[in-house]
Amino acid sequence: MTEVAKKWVYRFGDGQAEGAAEMKNLLGGKGANLAEMSNLGVPVPPGFTVTADVCTSFYDHNETYPEDLSGQVDEAVSFIEEIVGAKFGDNEKPLLVSVRSGARVSMPGMMDTVLNLGLNDDTVVGLAKWSGDERFAYDSYRRFIQMYADVVMGLEHHDFEDILEDYKDTKGYLADTEITADEWKEIIVRYKKCVADNHDDPFPQDVNAQLWGAVDAVFGSWECARAITYRTLHDIPAGWGTAVNIQAMVFGNMGDSSATGVAFTRDPSTGENELYGEFLVNAQGEDVVAGIRTPQNISEDARKKAGSNDPSLEGLMPTTFAELTGIFDKLEAHYRDMQDLEFTIQDGKLWMLQTRAGKRATTAAIKIAVDMANEGLITKQEAVLRVEPASLDQLLHPTLDPKAERTVLATGLPASPGAACGEVVFSSDEAERLKAIGHEVILVRTETSPEDIHGMHAANGILTSRGGMTSHAAVVARGMGTSCVSGAGEVRIDYQKQIFTAGDQVIAKGDVITIDGSSGEVMKGEVATIKPKLSEDFNMLMSWADEARHLRVRTNADTPADARTAIEFGAEGIGLCRTEHMFFEADRIQAVREMILADSEEDRRTALDKILPMQRGDFIELFEIMGELPVTIRLLDPPLHEFLPHSDKEITGVAEAMGVDVEKVRSRVNDLHEFNPMLGHRGVRLAVTYPEIAEMQARAIFEAATEVARKNGKAPIPEVMVPLIATKAELDMVADRIVAVAEEVQAESGVKLEYQVGTMVELPRACLTADKIAERAEFFSFGTNDLTQTTFGISRDDSARFIGEYTSRGILEVDPFVSLDQEGVGQLIETAVAKGRSTRAGMKMGICGEHGGDPASVEFCHRVGLDYVSCSPFRVPIARLAAGQAAVTKKG
Amino acid sequence: MTEVAKKWVYRFGDGQAEGAAEMKNLLGGKGANLAEMSNLGVPVPPGFTVTADVCTSFYDHNETYPEDLSGQVDEAVSFIEEIVGAKFGDNEKPLLVSVRSGARVSMPGMMDTVLNLGLNDDTVVGLAKWSGDERFAYDSYRRFIQMYADVVMGLEHHDFEDILEDYKDTKGYLADTEITADEWKEIIVRYKKCVADNHDDPFPQDVNAQLWGAVDAVFGSWECARAITYRTLHDIPAGWGTAVNIQAMVFGNMGDSSATGVAFTRDPSTGENELYGEFLVNAQGEDVVAGIRTPQNISEDARKKAGSNDPSLEGLMPTTFAELTGIFDKLEAHYRDMQDLEFTIQDGKLWMLQTRAGKRATTAAIKIAVDMANEGLITKQEAVLRVEPASLDQLLHPTLDPKAERTVLATGLPASPGAACGEVVFSSDEAERLKAIGHEVILVRTETSPEDIHGMHAANGILTSRGGMTSHAAVVARGMGTSCVSGAGEVRIDYQKQIFTAGDQVIAKGDVITIDGSSGEVMKGEVATIKPKLSEDFNMLMSWADEARHLRVRTNADTPADARTAIEFGAEGIGLCRTEHMFFEADRIQAVREMILADSEEDRRTALDKILPMQRGDFIELFEIMGELPVTIRLLDPPLHEFLPHSDKEITGVAEAMGVDVEKVRSRVNDLHEFNPMLGHRGVRLAVTYPEIAEMQARAIFEAATEVARKNGKAPIPEVMVPLIATKAELDMVADRIVAVAEEVQAESGVKLEYQVGTMVELPRACLTADKIAERAEFFSFGTNDLTQTTFGISRDDSARFIGEYTSRGILEVDPFVSLDQEGVGQLIETAVAKGRSTRAGMKMGICGEHGGDPASVEFCHRVGLDYVSCSPFRVPIARLAAGQAAVTKKG
Repeated sequence: MTEVAKKWVYRFGDGQAEGAAEMKNLLGGKGANLAEMSNLGVPVPPGFTVTADVCTSFYDHNETYPEDLSGQVDEAVSFIEEIVGAKFGDNEKPLLVSVRSGARVSMPGMMDTVLNLGLNDDTVVGLAKWSGDERFAYDSYRRFIQMYADVVMGLEHHDFEDILEDYKDTKGYLADTEITADEWKEIIVRYKKCVADNHDDPFPQDVNAQLWGAVDAVFGSWECARAITYRTLHDIPAGWGTAVNIQAMVFGNMGDSSATGVAFTRDPSTGENELYGEFLVNAQGEDVVAGIRTPQNISEDARKKAGSNDPSLEGLMPTTFAELTGIFDKLEAHYRDMQDLEFTIQDGKLWMLQTRAGKRATTAAIKIAVDMANEGLITKQEAVLRVEPASLDQLLHPTLDPKAERTVLATGLPASPGAACGEVVFSSDEAERLKAIGHEVILVRTETSPEDIHGMHAANGILTSRGGMTSHAAVVARGMGTSCVSGAGEVRIDYQKQIFTAGDQVIAKGDVITIDGSSGEVMKGEVATIKPKLSEDFNMLMSWADEARHLRVRTNADTPADARTAIEFGAEGIGLCRTEHMFFEADRIQAVREMILADSEEDRRTALDKILPMQRGDFIELFEIMGELPVTIRLLDPPLHEFLPHSDKEITGVAEAMGVDVEKVRSRVNDLHEFNPMLGHRGVRLAVTYPEIAEMQARAIFEAATEVARKNGKAPIPEVMVPLIATKAELDMVADRIVAVAEEVQAESGVKLEYQVGTMVELPRACLTADKIAERAEFFSFGTNDLTQTTFGISRDDSARFIGEYTSRGILEVDPFVSLDQEGVGQLIETAVAKGRSTRAGMKMGICGEHGGDPASVEFCHRVGLDYVSCSPFRVPIARLAAGQAAVTKKG
Repeated sequence: MTEVAKKWVYRFGDGQAEGAAEMKNLLGGKGANLAEMSNLGVPVPPGFTVTADVCTSFYDHNETYPEDLSGQVDEAVSFIEEIVGAKFGDNEKPLLVSVRSGARVSMPGMMDTVLNLGLNDDTVVGLAKWSGDERFAYDSYRRFIQMYADVVMGLEHHDFEDILEDYKDTKGYLADTEITADEWKEIIVRYKKCVADNHDDPFPQDVNAQLWGAVDAVFGSWECARAITYRTLHDIPAGWGTAVNIQAMVFGNMGDSSATGVAFTRDPSTGENELYGEFLVNAQGEDVVAGIRTPQNISEDARKKAGSNDPSLEGLMPTTFAELTGIFDKLEAHYRDMQDLEFTIQDGKLWMLQTRAGKRATTAAIKIAVDMANEGLITKQEAVLRVEPASLDQLLHPTLDPKAERTVLATGLPASPGAACGEVVFSSDEAERLKAIGHEVILVRTETSPEDIHGMHAANGILTSRGGMTSHAAVVARGMGTSCVSGAGEVRIDYQKQIFTAGDQVIAKGDVITIDGSSGEVMKGEVATIKPKLSEDFNMLMSWADEARHLRVRTNADTPADARTAIEFGAEGIGLCRTEHMFFEADRIQAVREMILADSEEDRRTALDKILPMQRGDFIELFEIMGELPVTIRLLDPPLHEFLPHSDKEITGVAEAMGVDVEKVRSRVNDLHEFNPMLGHRGVRLAVTYPEIAEMQARAIFEAATEVARKNGKAPIPEVMVPLIATKAELDMVADRIVAVAEEVQAESGVKLEYQVGTMVELPRACLTADKIAERAEFFSFGTNDLTQTTFGISRDDSARFIGEYTSRGILEVDPFVSLDQEGVGQLIETAVAKGRSTRAGMKMGICGEHGGDPASVEFCHRVGLDYVSCSPFRVPIARLAAGQAAVTKKG
């Protein structure tokens, strides 16, 4: 065999290591940091890491290990034995180890740990002798049995707790510390019997079987339901796998000169630069987090602040405390980030068990980043990288008070963040009516449609039982900054009875519910919320992001309110103004319907003439708010049937209101029915067949620009966007009309206008022929919602039924409607960018789909050289930060 | 100016020419052939051609001409003047010219011609003197005024006819020949008055104004409604433009030594190698086609055959006849094709006015091609190129007797060729019932759905008022070879009253109608039809095509009947067996519905167990018919709601039949409703969420293969095709299941099977990531229907509302559902072929969309290196011929 054997195992300890911090992908976060700490000379118990490649190989090969793994593990065990001077399975001086998982990113609570491994009926005797503490030895053994039985053998943790509690009750003990060594021996017998009774195999006495059992359990837990759920929620690919860390045990429970604790180098809730941590004397790590004994503060300052009488570590062991804070400073300086550490003091000797970047609340993340930059520890650009852009969302919306109690009725998709509370209503008209008389309402619908806009505006929150993250309800709600839970499948609406059910709960119209658009939860009654407040640190960080970024950030805004909110959040223009929403207002929908019901172009023009002044008014207001910032206006996009009523009752109502025959309305509704409206008679296809609609809109835009120019002395530069282009010829036809209208308006007014005519690139064919389309289009705006729909052949409104299965099974790593599919859709965008600019050098390009507010997608947009992203107003800060990060990362 | 002036004008005449036959795109067919004839020494009146580039430039520049055109035209006029020895506009010896259009391909009747141009009140006097025939001169002048007024000035032809008829009535004349020169002068006065009365300008006396007016009219007529319609019908791009030919007039009406005629070198109806033509003595060309005088036969043979007493040209002018037939032979030998010629004899001198490849009936085209190859005039490969593949369609289906009278009620799309006649029925059940008791029926529906399959099978023909060329009705009908007219918008169906109306006609259930799926016409009553018969020549030509082609031709076949028809037409395998159609048969739909209504996987499996034996039976029959030919079976594709009823009545019926609660059925129907079913929960997405369905189908396939292997000693090699793949991961998941089932079946039976698992490439994302998908897929079959839908973002079922406008306006050159969009969709296919084969060298690839039977698309498939095309059975011969042509053309 000439093949070089693959290295599956990396050792660390004794001031050196085979790994290093930057090998996180292979060794996991924990393993890489253990290696790094060893290299730094920080005291770390010796050990080794079985790489994440083993995990991947394990699942690729039908859950079997590489042949040469076991030899490498044996050698690494010997390495530990040598340093510690103890032997694994030895009856005299047994080596005990911990086995822990360690994935590339921290997945708290998801993966399992086994401590004290290596103990059995014989080695425990050796441990008792060697440590000189029989009670400690048998306590450790019973802890091991309990943990191993739970984590590796799958038995119930509480069965063991019950045995212990029963025993203590018999003896009249309150605390575990009252149990003697001999009593632990009795408990161990009962524990082993419990294992034998509840499992095919007895508790293993072979220490190697123990070790491999634990390793199996770690790898096995990578695919347990909890881990899969966590990965889905946090977009972690299944293919990353986890590493396993096997490390010599050190004991914080070897008497009063021993202790164990956890610490953060700064406060993870507030970000204050204060040591934050807890410890327990004579305890193992699990005791600190278990909550049975109350942990003590590490520093005197913290103790005093907390008003605690329990002594601090600083008070109890001042030298060790000094060594510890020295190590904290060293590690924070080395990693240049706030650290989350675990340590154990064994008989006065300090051991560091773990260091990693500490998880922190968003507010803390911002403060720490800004502070560290001000301290000179990191650069401003690094500070920009330290805050997860998506996490800003929680700062911008009211959130549930975490302390408030809640009764969850159902869980849907977290479609638009923020918490909202109100009376349940089942129709948009009702929502509007109740809002007008001072009620707070939650609009509950199977799905919303453009006809619900007024009700959505009136509602505090929106709940739908159907539809995904990019359903109508979700998209519009995010645009409005209204919280929304969509696709809550457990919610069954009965419009007839004006109730909805969720499981066995029945909620009637007028009942109060609370929805949390950040978690997807639907709750009974009112749950208290907290109002957001943006800090100085937030503004500082955003200014640094702005300095760094190249991408401009625009907003998708259809209304003056949207536009104002977006400007407050720092939007630099409107990237998408959807004109159809303007058509639904009560005073215009009638004229719109007259237009649709018209039998001739002439009648259509008459109806359009009524809409023109209102539409012009919309644009005047938008232009005035946006000042000199660019405004992209998309021509009418949806199929005309969206503007017509559908139920018999509504049809009759409309016919009466308009004074036309019911049959005529019904027949037109039938004529316009489409099998697949998403792929139907919409977008530019409307402008081709009814050019008078596009002409009216163009006229409204140019007349508005003219009026603003007259008023302010400076004309806005509108960007007229033609949607759904598949071929250059259709753009030519419509662009000719727009240009003709612009010339007419200029001739009429004598005011010279600048404007651009461009297109929304949202079909694969437009990407593939972008070189031709760019001959006419002056700008491209990628409509990544529709582009994703067509590239995947998936309707976002219908995807809810299967997309969950796709992400949970790992067929899709992430919902492509949430984060841009860079491999497929991204390939088309790259093609379009290259082809478009090959025709028109430096052509202005941006995206205006929902992806404009998704950090990973923003990074992609930066990478492929777009000029801007456009997103809903509440996502503008996220996009600004993400764009800053993309620029910093690319440069760095 | 260093620019070289562009050449807009090409001269010919006097045994030489600036152009040649191969310059058709620039000079048009007529112009190129006039040049070619000149070069061949055939006597052609001198003239020149204004190129098609001028037409394009004219429309590109707001209907203005290139600056340097007029100078070039003046010089060319001088060139004619010199050869003829006459001067344009000269009062002594005036040059007269004809002005004719000439596009790249012949567009008979679409473009306009002006003869005798150059005559005015002065030059007519010169012509009278010079020709020595005053009557001829004034007759020519009045003809010119009449034609010019009609064609150039847009006056009504019949106004002039009326003047002439009135005049003759007054004089008591029956024939024009009775009118004298002076009388023509009077008529001319009246003609000119008619012009002045009906037009802003008088009849032009300036010969140059006449010339440019005529040129304007030719170019203008390129965009007239008739021309646009013709181009749309014949897929001719608007961008080709037309050339204009200006040529010295020769006169067949200068007395009895003059004549004019048209001829084909072989019979254009039958293909027999016999001269076929007609002429008139003392006449102009228009008289031959006008039908006022009955033309005479050219040859004595033809005269005898026709039993005519009118002398033949051979009899009247034997020398000229000999010269003429000599020229015919020369031209047919030169062009190596049957020629359609126009000639004029002026005072005994023969002039050839035009030659071009003669249009011919399909039967004739086949016979001429085979004969010419047998004569050694062309090669077999050239013969293969001589027949338009699409035209074979009319040979394979019954056609309307062209002599039969008809009352057209409405016209829809020619969705599936052939004529059919029967009683109108409005439901599939009724169609089946009536068919069973011996009625012939036409199924009339707004649109069909998979539930109509049994009715479509029972019907002679299908008529729908909605849907395009690739609607459900159209696709299924073509597959069955049943004639179909789809999307007949004028047809309004009232299911309640069991009638349909078309205009003011009302057709009730039971009334007989005839539909022509080749023309789209819907006719009242029974119209006689003719049965097809395939000739020896047809079989010979197909065998030559088969010798030439590289592409295999498979068929799309879902039923044994389809498969047998396809084999008769020469199919070499099944490229697409759609299994869903099998689910609709009465004995299975119940089990299918049980499966859909099941609440658990277990109940679903119970229902599937009932379907398994039937499905296995389907495949056994197909495998037996196909023998060793490959069979590609596609797993279930449509969304499940297609199998459920939708109206209240049907829902109740199904619930009763199944013994389940009506509300349960209704609720499931509602749950499964989709906004865009085309982009919904279908294809592989069903197999991901309900893997048990795919497993049942795989089991049926493999068990069927096993049984056929046992029976025949040889196992078929099934190709299992997973539809609608967007990512490799979803194929992996389903392919794993299929492989597992194959292994189970082999283990159970002990029979070893060969099989392949591949995928239908029908989404842009699959094309873009074909390299990855090919890691798992063993073959690709391009589903170009869905790929076209997603690439364009157009639903074929909804496209009817705008696609007509797109093709008539020239935005799309051709409906992309009829002929593959090579620029966009084709680009994706090329990408997928290259990427797929980069992973899996020589990977088998084909297409199975409707495009597999479209000649241009077949040519594309050959060019990009596909292995086969698959099309509906009746299109197999078309695909064979098209594939042969592609191979010959590419090699040539």
